[in-house]
Amino acid sequence: MRALKPQFITVEGGEGVGKTTNIAFIRKWLEQQGLDYVATREPGGTPLAEEIRGLLVNPREEVVDENTELLLMFAARAQHLSQVIRPAMNAGKWVLCDRFTDATYAYQGGGRGMAVEKIAQLETLVQGSLRPDLTLLLDIGVEQGMARASERGAPDRFEQEKLAFFHAVRDCYLARAAAEPRRYRIIDASQPLSQVQSAIGEALEAFVDAIHD
Amino acid sequence: MRALKPQFITVEGGEGVGKTTNIAFIRKWLEQQGLDYVATREPGGTPLAEEIRGLLVNPREEVVDENTELLLMFAARAQHLSQVIRPAMNAGKWVLCDRFTDATYAYQGGGRGMAVEKIAQLETLVQGSLRPDLTLLLDIGVEQGMARASERGAPDRFEQEKLAFFHAVRDCYLARAAAEPRRYRIIDASQPLSQVQSAIGEALEAFVDAIHD
Ligand SMILES: Nc1ncnc2c1ncn2[C@@H]1O[C@H](COP(=O)(O)OP(=O)(O)O)[C@@H](O)[C@H]1O
Ligand SMILES: Nc1ncnc2c1ncn2[C@@H]1O[C@H](COP(=O)(O)OP(=O)(O)O)[C@@H](O)[C@H]1O
Ligand SMILES: [Mg+2]
Ligand SMILES: [Mg+2]
Repeated sequence: MRALKPQFITVEGGEGVGKTTNIAFIRKWLEQQGLDYVATREPGGTPLAEEIRGLLVNPREEVVDENTELLLMFAARAQHLSQVIRPAMNAGKWVLCDRFTDATYAYQGGGRGMAVEKIAQLETLVQGSLRPDLTLLLDIGVEQGMARASERGAPDRFEQEKLAFFHAVRDCYLARAAAEPRRYRIIDASQPLSQVQSAIGEALEAFVDAIHD
Repeated sequence: MRALKPQFITVEGGEGVGKTTNIAFIRKWLEQQGLDYVATREPGGTPLAEEIRGLLVNPREEVVDENTELLLMFAARAQHLSQVIRPAMNAGKWVLCDRFTDATYAYQGGGRGMAVEKIAQLETLVQGSLRPDLTLLLDIGVEQGMARASERGAPDRFEQEKLAFFHAVRDCYLARAAAEPRRYRIIDASQPLSQVQSAIGEALEAFVDAIHD
């Protein structure tokens, strides 16, 4: 067991980029390093937060107001932070999360066009100063990601959006990564899975080396 | 049909004060005046907002973080405002609502002890400048209200709170009414129902007279 301050790693990117697929790879990598960790996802990660996820992603007749969507995202996040993420980190565990607040900036900010200040206000209200230590942004052309995602079955409420929405999501992710290069690693997710995993492995090695320094 | 700018009336107070009972009386009063109105309630008022209400009020094993509770309340409110309250007022209808944001100040602020600034921030985010035009605060001793409420069946997640919680809720309601006497009318809800209704009728008459001036 290496004695490192517990780190908070998030995996981000649009639909079908391979987040969930590669979470499994990162888990193995963490185990090989002898690191104690919790792997989780957003929106969700606790029974209540998963119920909120259901309200968010299941298609429905009723129009969902953009403020409602944003507040539900942060309600799920507050629950996840208080019941899972903060307790894990306080217990010295690493946290590996499939999506986090960057996804809110990308989907509600980029995709829906909501004001960044509104999102930032809720981020501070819910997270205080907590931010991910490392964010792996899996990047792929929108059409290619959608093609992969479409093979998973019926589209959820977000997957039903138009192509322009997903272009805005991707552009927002890339802009955020460019603005904060120390936290983000952009991974070319259009490559075959073995190459994506090599790139992720290298990013993780470099990240751990940097913490040791 | 009297031509009055549509007004937003809320009915507030702790458990068992008679809000839902007296909403029925106020509806009749509005009809007698020939006023077109929508009667609704919070949390809830739309299918999605009622689902959020279920998450909030149904007892559960999992600890509910206070930020989660607060954000769910405002998520339900955002939906209710966008789908019911604002469309009704834009169509010239009065709105009569069983609880609104004063209840958030009283329960999450007073009862749970959350910072008023946090609630005010979300109030502005969700409502902009919209506030009720008239708030009828039904006031009763905490024990008397709890006794009435307990006859309704199994207590919900809020009704399971301790007495100190409900004293803090009542104190907060009374403090808010004292600070904003133009918007609030305090109704002594410990009286027999007929007297409560006379007091509400007088408050409504005075309110309408003041709008006409
Ligand atoms: N590098 C890759 N090359 C080809 N297919 C991939 C690759 N990564 C993931 N996939 C496939 O794409 C689909 C979506 O992957 P998933 O991990 O569910 O994406 P996400 O969680 O980002 O939406 C799955 O069928 C998965 O097997
Ligand atoms: N003035 C009153 N006197 C006696 N009982 C009342 C009075 N007002 C309401 N009740 C009864 O108290 C109980 C709670 O009333 P309710 O309208 O459901 O309260 P709330 O909606 O404020 O929780 C009901 O059984 C109702 O019939
Ligand atoms: Mg996934
Ligand atoms: Mg009631």
